[in-house]
This record gives sequence, structure tokens and C-alpha cells, in this order.
Amino acid sequence: GLVLGSGDGKAKAERMFGLMNGFLKNDPYSLQKDILDHVEFTVPRSRFSFDDFEAYQACAHTVKDRLIERWHDTQMYFKRKDPKRLYFLSLEFLMGRSLSNSVINMGFQDQYAEALSQLGFDFEVVAEQEADAALGNGGLARFSACQMDSLATLDYPAWGYGLRYQYGLFRQVIIDGYQHEQPDYWLNFGNPWEIERVHVSYAVKFHGTVEEKTIDGEVRHDWVPGEMVEAVAYDNPIPGYGTRNTINLRLWAAKPSGEYDMESFNTGDYINSVVNRQNAETISNVLYPDDRSHQGKELRLKQQYFFVSASLQDIVRRFKDSHPNFENFSEKIALQLNDTHPSLAIAELMRILIDEEHLKWNTVWKIVCDVFSFTTHTVSPESLEKIPVDLLGSLLPRHLQILYDINFKFMEDLKKKIGLDYDRLARMSIIKEGAVKQIRVANLSIVCSHTVIGVSRAHLELLKTRVFKDFYELWPEKFQYKTNGATQRRWIVVSNPNLCALISRWLGTESWIHNVDLLTGLREHAADASLQQDWQKVRRMNKMRLAEYIEATSGVTVSLDAMFDVQIKRIHEYKRQLLNLLGVIHRYDCIKNMEKGDKRRVVPRVCIIGGKAAPGYEVAKKIIKLCHAVAEKINNDPDVGDLLKLVFIPDYNVSVAELVIPGADLSQHLSTAGHEPSGTGNMKFLMNGCLLLATQDGSTIEIAEELGVDNMFSFGAKLHEVAALREKGLAVKAPLQFARVIRMVRDGYFGHKDYFKSLCETVDGSNDFYLLGHDFASYLEAQAAADKAFVDKEKWTRMSILSTAASGRFSSDRTIQEYAEHTWGIEPCRCPF
Amino acid sequence: GLVLGSGDGKAKAERMFGLMNGFLKNDPYSLQKDILDHVEFTVPRSRFSFDDFEAYQACAHTVKDRLIERWHDTQMYFKRKDPKRLYFLSLEFLMGRSLSNSVINMGFQDQYAEALSQLGFDFEVVAEQEADAALGNGGLARFSACQMDSLATLDYPAWGYGLRYQYGLFRQVIIDGYQHEQPDYWLNFGNPWEIERVHVSYAVKFHGTVEEKTIDGEVRHDWVPGEMVEAVAYDNPIPGYGTRNTINLRLWAAKPSGEYDMESFNTGDYINSVVNRQNAETISNVLYPDDRSHQGKELRLKQQYFFVSASLQDIVRRFKDSHPNFENFSEKIALQLNDTHPSLAIAELMRILIDEEHLKWNTVWKIVCDVFSFTTHTVSPESLEKIPVDLLGSLLPRHLQILYDINFKFMEDLKKKIGLDYDRLARMSIIKEGAVKQIRVANLSIVCSHTVIGVSRAHLELLKTRVFKDFYELWPEKFQYKTNGATQRRWIVVSNPNLCALISRWLGTESWIHNVDLLTGLREHAADASLQQDWQKVRRMNKMRLAEYIEATSGVTVSLDAMFDVQIKRIHEYKRQLLNLLGVIHRYDCIKNMEKGDKRRVVPRVCIIGGKAAPGYEVAKKIIKLCHAVAEKINNDPDVGDLLKLVFIPDYNVSVAELVIPGADLSQHLSTAGHEPSGTGNMKFLMNGCLLLATQDGSTIEIAEELGVDNMFSFGAKLHEVAALREKGLAVKAPLQFARVIRMVRDGYFGHKDYFKSLCETVDGSNDFYLLGHDFASYLEAQAAADKAFVDKEKWTRMSILSTAASGRFSSDRTIQEYAEHTWGIEPCRCPF
Ligand SMILES: Cc1ncc(COP(=O)(O)O)c(C=O)c1O
Ligand SMILES: Cc1ncc(COP(=O)(O)O)c(C=O)c1O
Repeated sequence: GLVLGSGDGKAKAERMFGLMNGFLKNDPYSLQKDILDHVEFTVPRSRFSFDDFEAYQACAHTVKDRLIERWHDTQMYFKRKDPKRLYFLSLEFLMGRSLSNSVINMGFQDQYAEALSQLGFDFEVVAEQEADAALGNGGLARFSACQMDSLATLDYPAWGYGLRYQYGLFRQVIIDGYQHEQPDYWLNFGNPWEIERVHVSYAVKFHGTVEEKTIDGEVRHDWVPGEMVEAVAYDNPIPGYGTRNTINLRLWAAKPSGEYDMESFNTGDYINSVVNRQNAETISNVLYPDDRSHQGKELRLKQQYFFVSASLQDIVRRFKDSHPNFENFSEKIALQLNDTHPSLAIAELMRILIDEEHLKWNTVWKIVCDVFSFTTHTVSPESLEKIPVDLLGSLLPRHLQILYDINFKFMEDLKKKIGLDYDRLARMSIIKEGAVKQIRVANLSIVCSHTVIGVSRAHLELLKTRVFKDFYELWPEKFQYKTNGATQRRWIVVSNPNLCALISRWLGTESWIHNVDLLTGLREHAADASLQQDWQKVRRMNKMRLAEYIEATSGVTVSLDAMFDVQIKRIHEYKRQLLNLLGVIHRYDCIKNMEKGDKRRVVPRVCIIGGKAAPGYEVAKKIIKLCHAVAEKINNDPDVGDLLKLVFIPDYNVSVAELVIPGADLSQHLSTAGHEPSGTGNMKFLMNGCLLLATQDGSTIEIAEELGVDNMFSFGAKLHEVAALREKGLAVKAPLQFARVIRMVRDGYFGHKDYFKSLCETVDGSNDFYLLGHDFASYLEAQAAADKAFVDKEKWTRMSILSTAASGRFSSDRTIQEYAEHTWGIEPCRCPF
Repeated sequence: GLVLGSGDGKAKAERMFGLMNGFLKNDPYSLQKDILDHVEFTVPRSRFSFDDFEAYQACAHTVKDRLIERWHDTQMYFKRKDPKRLYFLSLEFLMGRSLSNSVINMGFQDQYAEALSQLGFDFEVVAEQEADAALGNGGLARFSACQMDSLATLDYPAWGYGLRYQYGLFRQVIIDGYQHEQPDYWLNFGNPWEIERVHVSYAVKFHGTVEEKTIDGEVRHDWVPGEMVEAVAYDNPIPGYGTRNTINLRLWAAKPSGEYDMESFNTGDYINSVVNRQNAETISNVLYPDDRSHQGKELRLKQQYFFVSASLQDIVRRFKDSHPNFENFSEKIALQLNDTHPSLAIAELMRILIDEEHLKWNTVWKIVCDVFSFTTHTVSPESLEKIPVDLLGSLLPRHLQILYDINFKFMEDLKKKIGLDYDRLARMSIIKEGAVKQIRVANLSIVCSHTVIGVSRAHLELLKTRVFKDFYELWPEKFQYKTNGATQRRWIVVSNPNLCALISRWLGTESWIHNVDLLTGLREHAADASLQQDWQKVRRMNKMRLAEYIEATSGVTVSLDAMFDVQIKRIHEYKRQLLNLLGVIHRYDCIKNMEKGDKRRVVPRVCIIGGKAAPGYEVAKKIIKLCHAVAEKINNDPDVGDLLKLVFIPDYNVSVAELVIPGADLSQHLSTAGHEPSGTGNMKFLMNGCLLLATQDGSTIEIAEELGVDNMFSFGAKLHEVAALREKGLAVKAPLQFARVIRMVRDGYFGHKDYFKSLCETVDGSNDFYLLGHDFASYLEAQAAADKAFVDKEKWTRMSILSTAASGRFSSDRTIQEYAEHTWGIEPCRCPF
């Protein structure tokens, strides 16, 4: 190999430098050469005949080459500077596409557009060839992705760790109005963005037994596994905007454990044993498609531990590479737990430091309590993740011991502080006693983390008063909130280039792209007729693009003069897509019963709904079917025409969001107060100048503060009212209009009477947990207000501009800065150009 | 996309040409730049610190880029010229390493050596980083690889088709002298040689039912499958020597079948269904490790059909791309069946042309009979492959119908020719009746092929008189032989560069590398003292390399003055490694019982044995253990010292062969006459000037003719004597020496008495099917003759030179030329430079 330095080696090194022609060149001509080389040698295809997809692949490879240059420089620089690093552990990252985002963050968008155009290709078309990386379910996962973008842009020395699912979130296919699931074969045509690190791999153990030995008077635990699987690293470079810094998202794939020998006595044995070992790959095969609940299933637990163990082995290895001992471990490392999914990291770090590095329990305990911070995304105690003790004990026997030890010490301490309040002790214990003993993963995370973080101010209130009340009373100083955010790079610059250009023109700078507070500068121009005109033009172009997409995917032609009213997000009872649908039915019913003359005063609407339902979530699936049944009726009713259309956009994902959000006039965020921990969809619509029709819940409360509640359409029960309303239950009668639309569904007006019966029952009287009946009237009022505002173009446009102007606080840059300063204690580490 | 031609497109095309700087450059400086770029962007690793393995990867990628250039030009040229093409179907290809071979065939070896040396690397060391591609068991598979090299070198328009096993032939690990099997994870660190063709993929069907419909008065068969798997193409470019022609070896990998939708009603269902579909990959997971027998197992049958179906779909698609109908199909296509493994191709071609292309049975039948040729590698009727009818009917219901139809027509014809000789009809039938009905795959292949080929002259005799006697009598003109061969590019030029240079020096030309008959030119110099001296020097250097390898792998130090006596090949009773071992024991026994003074006259030997045993082949595994037990005894016996060493070289494969063969003085080929169809190991030793100690069997008979039997050490029963000897059986008493060595083993002289008992019984009296007892005396005589010759350095060297000089006839170039002219009817199609 090559070693720099003295003598012979030095001469060779000089030769090597001589062979470098500096960095890769980024002018259009050089890009073309590189693209064509990748067409010919990497794709590979003839440079004289390649299609859009092959152009995408080649382009992606040229971008990746440039990412690798920067990635490498950044990592070398971090290594040299040795700053405190953040490790962000998340089981889900919803990255979406990478081509446009990378090119823009690196600052080559014009050069690429020109290079491709000269070759006869259109950058936008080429970029659309890319399949989404959909390694996550929804808000939580997309927020992880936004955070990675902000961490890179703000030059923080951070790494992400996750799982490389062979199949991401299922693709939603609608057949006869019903959701079907299709495996997400996103890797089938190759993934040019990842770097396979065949030599970065760790053995991950499962099952087996723990043996105790006394060595030099100390008890040692030796875990003899029953199963071993190899974790292989795949690195995904994340470029910052306006910086050379390019950080790493390392995802782990499961592979059969390396070399192992067997003695087979016949062909069948041999073949079976080879085939079986291949099954190791099952661990990273598929993302669980449930976004707010998980039953304690072995495969899921294996995924969690597999990812956590590989990540921690990697982190400890890297730390040891440049530190002689573990003394300053917690000064150099911050570990962020994204929800409870990675919480086994706590036990795994203890295991590594105690069993493998032979540190003392107390030393390790101190380290653990100093390094972990924990963000929760949960709003109710019932939905907190639990792991059956039997399952954990069988899969991870040593970790179960450690958890018991942690809990024992915690309980002893607690008794000293609160006395023998057995009810409270039982509630706070990490082990839930009962017929089926369970590990309360959230309790573990709270006990062992220095900070517990809610994702909006309202969410913190819920944590204090409802979800983690006992813990808040014990350790009030541990509890904080950091409102979620979204990155304006992807959600304005990439997905709404025309708006981006318009904003920069009016602000006289592009600095808002990394200093998003500057957006407030738009406020003073909100009423400017010239800006308004440009603003409307941009919004109309985006609507046109969306209209084309709707026509292509659903065959429905929509009018650009109608209000585009959008609700896209996972389908959930608490998100109340059903409320939206009932509102649509009501509107339809009104139009049907109108005098002809009155119709002229109806504000035309295109109601757009999109979202996936978890495969086992029956109510959600019925809502999807209801949407299609209602749409079928309305869209084919000649009495209605352009006054009302209902469209379901299938397979909602990041790239669909990027297309839909810029084209929306109004967006709906209808969660019953107290149920949406934060929400980030709302922020993305806000950034794009889309008006919100929303309950006062999660981060919407803060949006209302920033924007002024008059600049949005707010409705529904407030947080403090909800409990009382539920208690009243049956006593409250839903308004007549509500009963009427429900009756239409129930009576089979949209067909499928039997199928929709149980759906109607979910909102029936005392069953109506999410208060659709109660909120219906105020919902309709808010909708009427929106109609009224829409007619006044000047007013609407002003509200739209003000929305964008108010969105700065909801950038993930702000979120990350707060985390960095208050929670992780990390500082920017900017790689010089 | 880009279309060349008129207007706008033309301007762009010109721009594109402008961007090409012709072919990749191959001077050392350009190679260095390209290597470093691949280090940085493909491996990827820092160009300032990479190790030998990473240097190998980068180098391989630069070579692959150059292969792609040539591959592409060749394929375009073939397409334009549209010559008759050969498709070579084989379930096994034992390619070994590619780096040196490719570089040498393309003619860049010096440039690469220089480029790497200036970067501080040694080409040979870098090349040794490559893992073998071991997608085959032994002789048959390596012969396929040699044929690919010859096809490319001779400019034939040929394609190879095979299976891309995730795990090739198991790696042999020896623990306590016993063979253990380790999965061959050859792809774990990436395979830079292959080109994944994500868009070249075909659905392959299994199971299900056949529906009959009558359309326009014709009966159509519609196969509704129960299972679908996708076959994805991986292309492996095969460069010819001294030509730009680079042909394709296309291997198929099984992937889950594309997009399919399901409606899941809970998470568990969804997860299971995604995980299960992943199991499709099992089909191409692992190579069956049995080289001479296959029980009809479903997975194996699936492999066969999977590979055959994908290949034929691909071939038919390519044909249709440039031909309006099937009229000249058989003028344009030759299909070669390598043994019976791909014989379902016959039924598959019929199915495609009848069921999918709607040709008439008679038209198709004529095509099939015109395109297929069949080479058999079998020596006994009992070991011919059979498929249970039930298994085939369940897996491939439509193919079973077709086979029945073919057989019905064949039987009817046959009755007309031979009358109602029911015994003979039953023997020749494709369907074997009985308790378990079976398909005789060989009979199918013979009936449907225009030519049936044996792999040596002796083999053809066996076919005529024993294996296919009935068919030979029916169609004598169908039966031919083409003696196997080996490519001198890999087996001299790559693996023995010093000998290669020496030969070229003495012949005054390198032309022998593609015109191997020129080697006979060495004969006139065989006695030349100066050549002899050089020759000995080269041989000694090769022995030194081998000695180092032995020391490194087995810890045994061997003397370079000893005769290196090698037997490397699969372990089989018929190959009689046991005879070799018994000979070694005899030699040991002699030394032990010698007067001290006599020892001086003993010719020192290093006996080297290597080879794998099929996992279920108990006797073969015992032979391996015996070798280790005997070696343990001998190598540690101070009475013996350098006079005798016994070494087992583990994990015999192509790259081990490349190292061992050039360093061998004597090689042993001991198959009982009538059991080795050809043998190709013998040819490789011959090329390298290694003397043969061999029975008169398979191709050795032809070698003896070419070389003169006096120039080798021949022994043992002749083919025509074997049957009689077996009949005599018990009556013949094995010689005393034989009984004595067997007794040593049986009595536990080498330990493991119980374990070796059954092994001893295999050669006991009437059990001694392979005639070890009978041949032992003449074997020892041949060994004595070898000892005697070895002492006479001049004589030995002359014999060695004559061996190489006689090897020209055993080049696969000759084999391929014969096939091309007499069987396939194809002609060279040389891509212009
Ligand atoms: C694909 C996807 N899913 C889910 C979400 C989260 O949406 P919400 O916060 O409205 O639930 C987003 C936000 O952009 C998204 O892009
Ligand atoms: C790895 C390997 N196996 C098997 C063979 C076939 O050897 P034989 O013909 O002696 O059985 C060869 C020939 O070179 C080989 O390289």
C-alpha cells in the first residue's frame, strides 16, 4: 500500500499529487463530459442512445462524485478538529429524492440545467426519474430528514444513523377505491446515492445465554449468542447549503454473518444451511408501516436492536480510534434518541462499556446519563411503546439484566425521594408488572436521558400534565420543548423555484435560504400590488402543474380558478380526514339543493385528499374508500360541474408533497386538539404561501401566534375544552347538518352501505371520541370564511404573502440551533473551502 | 432522450461527438489517473491512503471501463453484421480471477505493471486480492470458461448464458483433517467485473395450470402460473486475445417479481408477504456442489428451468428485434447444451414458439431439431440425470405436456423403424416407466439435437457401446467427439509468465498464444542445453513460489530438490486419490524399513494432493481425512526428513491451480480406465511442462499419442480389460504390498481405526470396483520409473519440453474451431479496430 512520508514513499506521493487536477470541475462542459462518461461506463449504455432514466442515473453519479469529494474533506476535517459530535439515531428517515436537492445545495443547479439542455434533456424531467427514498412513515421520519439538511447547512459535526430497508414504506395502489399495498422496490434499479462500505461491518448478536465469570475479583458477563448477523454500512452523503460541509447518514443493512464453517453430511443439509443463513437479511428487509403504534413483535425488536447495536459499535470504535480512554466520552459525544425506537441504545452502550471495555457500572452510568437526550412524539400514555419482558429476555438476555439493574437502582433512589408511594412507584417503574410483564421504553429513556423534549409548546404541556406527569414532578428541569421545523431548502427552493426566485428578488438577497428569519422582510410588501401580481402568477403556474398531475393520475379535469383545497397526510381518525369528507358531502348537498341562480355565488373548489393508511388500520382504509365513493358521485354529477371536485391523490410521499404543496390555495390540518404533537405539513404549506384551515393544536398554535390568527381559518374545540366535551359525551347533540351528512353515507347514498356502517358508528354520539360532531359547525364556518376570503383576491394574496413571511420560525434550522445550543452542546465546525 | 439524425438532434449529436476524446487511453500515466479516480469515486477511498485490496478494486474498474468500450463495439458490430450466433448454455462456469487475464488479453499488462509500480503497488500482489468466481464444480465448468476465452479470441459471434449464484462452490476449510464447508461469499466485497442490467429482465413462471382454448379453430395452451420470479441479467465481458472482440457471458439472478399488489388486513400479513416474496432470490442462491450426480430436487430443477427460460426469452427477443419472422431462425442461431443441465431449453423453445409465437408444431419441431447440439460428459447409463415426472408436472405443467407429445411422436416414428421391440422402445423412451415415472433428460436431448458429442475419442467409444448404444445404432451419424481443451492464455500466459516468455524467445514469436500449433516448434530444441538450462530455471522459480505457498498454508517446509508430485482435482473414488495415498504409504513404509545407507538413493518427493469432496460424499471425505492422518505421521517422522512429505492443499480452485500447476514436476491422473470422459487438468500440466503419470483413459490416450507414451509414465488396466477384471472380481488377489498398506490403515497405524474401516472396505476384494488392487503393482512401477527419470536431469527436462511442445492439440482453440466448423456452423466476425 501507499504510505506518505519519507524517501521512496514521498516521491510516489508527489507523483500522486501531480496526478490530481484539483477538484472536479463544475462548468457545464465538464459536467457534460462526466455525464457522458458515466452513461458509457457506469450505467452503462451507449453515449449515443440513452433515455431520461439513464440520463438521471449518469447525472446522479456525477453529483455523487462531487458529494464524495466534499464528504471526504468534511470527515477528514472533523477528525482533525475532534469537536463534540452529535449522533442522531432514528429508525426512520424520509429523504425523498436527492438529485435536485443535492445540486441546489452544492450550488450547481444552473450548470446542470445547461449541461443537460445542450445534450437534449430537461433537468426537471430527468430529476423526476428518481424514485423516492421512503425509509419512514410520515411526519417523524420527514422531520429527521429536514434535521439532517439543517445540521449539514449549519456546519454541525453530526452523523445520522438508521436502517437501510430493502423495501421502504409500501406504495399505495388504489383498486376500485380500496387501498392495496405494493412493496416499495426502490433499490431495484440501483441507488446511485449510497456508498456501500463493505469493510465497515459489525457482528450483531441475538439470543443465547449469559455466563458469569469472576476475573480478578470482578464479575464479568459473557454473552454467548445463539445467532449472529452482520451489519454492513451504507453511507449517504448529506450536503449543506452554501457550505462545503457534507455530513453522513449511515444506514445499516443486515447480511449473513461472515465466514462460518459447517460440516454437512448431505447436499440437502448443505443447501439448506446456505439458504437459511441468507435469511439474516430479513432483519433489514422492510419498514413497519405503522406510524403511531407498534405491537412488540420479534422482527421489529430485532430491527431496533440491530440498528442500535451497529451504530453504537461504530461510535465507540470511532471514539477509541482517537482517544486513549473513555474519560472525555461525554464531552465528545451527544446521542439523540428520536422517539423510543432507538432506546435500546442505552442498554447497549452500558453493555459495551461494562462487558467489553470493562468500565465500572458507576462510571458508565454517569456517561450514559450525560450523553443521551430523548425526543418524544407521543401524546397519550396508552400509545407508548412497550416490549414484553419474555421477548426481550429471549432475544437480548444480557440487556434484560442491565435493564433490571437500572430499574432497581432507580426505584431505590426514587423511594428515598418520594417515599413508599407504591402506586406512583409502580407507574414510574421501567418494568410494568402484571400478567404480561413489559418494559416501558419511554420510562427507560426518561430515566437515562439528561433532557426530555417535546415537539411543540402544546406538546410539552401534554407531557407535563398527562403523559409524563410523574416524571415531570420528579425532574421538572429535564423537560423542554423544541418546536419541529422544515427545511426551506427542500420545501421552497427545490420544490417551488419560481416562488424562491420571487422572494429573493423582493428581499434583494438569497440569504434567507440559510438565514430564514429574513423572510419577515416580506411583510412590508404584503400589500404591494406588483408583488401581489407576481405572487399570483407564480401560484397559478404551480396550480397548473398540479392540475396536470391530477388529470394524469386520476383523470379528473379541474379548473384553475377554483380554490385548491388540500389535505395530505397519513390517514388517521385523529387527523379527521372524515371531517373533511363530511364537509365535502355537506357542500355537495348544498349545491344540489340550490336554486340555479344561487350557484353563481358558490366559490368553486377542488378538494384534494391524499395519504396512506396503515395496512391493518380498518377505519382509515374505509375513509379512503369513502373518499373515492364520494368523488365518484360528485365528479360525475352534471349539476355540480366545476363548482366542486373531489380528488384522491394516490401514493402520497415526499415527491408528491413537493408537487402538491406549492399548488395549494388552502390546506387543512384538522387534528382534534391535543392529538397532533407538532405537525410539520402545516409549516410547509405556510412557507409556500398556502393558507391554513386548522384547529389550534400542536405547532399550529405557534403558527397562529406568529402569523396572527386572523390570517388563517381557525376552528374547533380548544385543548382545555376537549376533556370536558368528551365527558359530556352523549349529552351533546351533534348539529343537524352533521346528522344529515352522516345519514347520507349510512343510507347508501354513495353505495357500499354495509361497508361504511362501522365507519359511521365511529362518530356516533358517545363514540365520537375525536369530536367530529362537536366541531362540525365551526368547521363549516371556517370553510365559509375561507370561501369569502378567496373571492377577495387582494386580501387572499396578502394573507398568502404574510404566511410565507411568518414561516421563518418554522425552519428546521431554528429547531436544530436550539437543540445544538441547549441540548447537545455542539458547535459549528466548518470545513474550509 | 437523444435521437441522432435530423435538425436539432444532429447539432446535439455533433456536440456529443465533440465531447468524446476517442477511446480511453492506455499509457501508464492515463491508467494512473483513471485508477486514482476510481479509488476516490468508485471504491471510494482517499487517493492518499488505500490498500492492496482497494488498489485491486480500482484497477478492476479501469479494466472494466475498457472492457465495456470493446464489449459495446463488438455487440454493435454483431448486430450490424447479423451473423449466425452461437448461444452456449451451461449451468456452470468456473471463471476464476479476471484481472490478469483481462489485462493480458487486451494487451496492457506492461502498462498496468508500470502504472501500479509507480504508485507503490505490485501488480501481482494486487491481482491476488481478487476472489475467484467459482460458479462451477470442476472440469465441466472450467472447460466452459476456457471455451468462452477461445470463442472470444477466435472472433466467433457467441454468447454464454448461465446462473449468477450468490454463493459459488463452497470453500473447503480443513479442521482436524476433516473437510468443512464454508459458503462462498464471493460477492460480499462487490464484483467489479459484472454489469447489472436492471432493465434486461424476464418473468419466469412456475407451477399453476394449463388451460386449453380454441382460437380460430386452433387449440391454444395458456399456462396460468402459480408463481412468478424475475430473472435479471448480469453481463460479464469476455475479452479475446489479440482482438478487439469482447463477447458476453450473461448470468441470471433471481429477484422478486416486479410490481404486485396485495390488500393486507394487518401488519403481520403485510410484513410476511414482503419477506416471502424476497425468497424468490433463493433460486439463484447457491450452486449445487455435486459434480457428477444430481437427485431430482425441486430447487435444482427450478434453477435449471429459471436459467433456461430467461436465456431463451432473451434469445428469442433479440432475434425478433431484427427479423420479421422465424423463417431463418435456425440459420441464425445455434444452441449448445452443455451436458443435460440445460436440456429443458428444448421444451422451453417449443413452448415459446408454439404458445406465445403461435407457430405450428411441425414448424417448431423442425427448428428445434436444427438448432440444438448436445455435449454429454457422462460415462455410465446409471449416472444420467432423471427428473421425476410428478415433480416436473407440478413445477412445469406445460412442459410436461410438450415432453409427452415429443415422446409420443418419437415412439411412433421409432416403431416404424425398429418394429415392436418393446424392450428397446422402453429403453429409448424419454419417459421411464415404473413405480416412479421419470424423464430421461439425456434421451430428450439426443432425440431433439442434430449432434451428440463426446468429449474425447475414448468417450465417444463409451457412448457408442455402452451409454447410448441404442441411439447410436439408430442414428450413427449424430454421434461425434470433440476432445476437450484448455486455453493457453490462462494456463500458460497468465499463470506461468516466465515460461511464456521463454517459449516466445525460443520460438521467436508470440503467435503461439493464438496459434498454438506453433508450440511443436519447441521439439527441435528439446535437447538444447541452453534451452534446458533456462527451462530448469523457470521451473525452479515456479517451484519456489509453490513451496512458499505450501509453507504458508500448511506449515510444512519442503525442499526444492524434491520431486513435486501433484494430484489436484475433485475427490472421487474413480479418480483414485486413494491409490495415490496408498502409494505414499508404501513409499513411507519402504523408507522406514530401509538401511540408512539405502536412503541416499531415495529420490526425495513432495506429494501434493488437493481437491474438494461433495458434502454428502462420505468416502471422498474419508480420503481427505486419511491424507491428513498420513501426512501428520510422515511429516513428523525424523526417520523420513526431506525424503518424503505429504501435503494437502486446501480449497482447490482455479487460482490455486494456476499456482500449483506451473510448480509441479509430476502430475497424477489415476482414473480407472473408462471413467474419465476427458479430463482437462492433464492438459494444463502438459502445457506447463509437467510430466504425467497416468492411466490410459479419456483424453490421456490422445495425449500419449501426441507426446509418445515413452514421454509419460503410463500404467494400469486398459479400457478393454476393465470389464473382464471386474467380472473376475474376488478371484484376483491383490498384491501383497497392497494388502500390507491397507492393513496399516485398517489397524490404526494412522489413528482413527474405526473411521477408516469403511474406507478400507471399498477396495476390499470383490468390492474393489475401481481396481486399486489390480493396478497397484503397475502403479508402483510407473512411480519407480518416474523416480529414475527424475534423477537424469537432462532426460527429465527433455521430456518436460516435449510435453509443452505436444500440448498444442489440447488447446480449447482447437476444440472450439472443430465445434464451430462441424457442429455450430458459425464463422468468425471480427470487429474492426
Ligand atoms: C410524505 C409525508 N408524510 C407525512 C408528512 C407529515 O405531514 P403532517 O405533519 O401534516 O402529518 C409530510 C410532511 O411534509 C410528508 O412529506
Ligand atoms: C478448479 C479446477 N477444478 C477441476 C479441474 C478439472 O481437473 P481434472 O480434469 O483433472 O479433473 C480444473 C482444471 O484445471 C480446475 O482448475
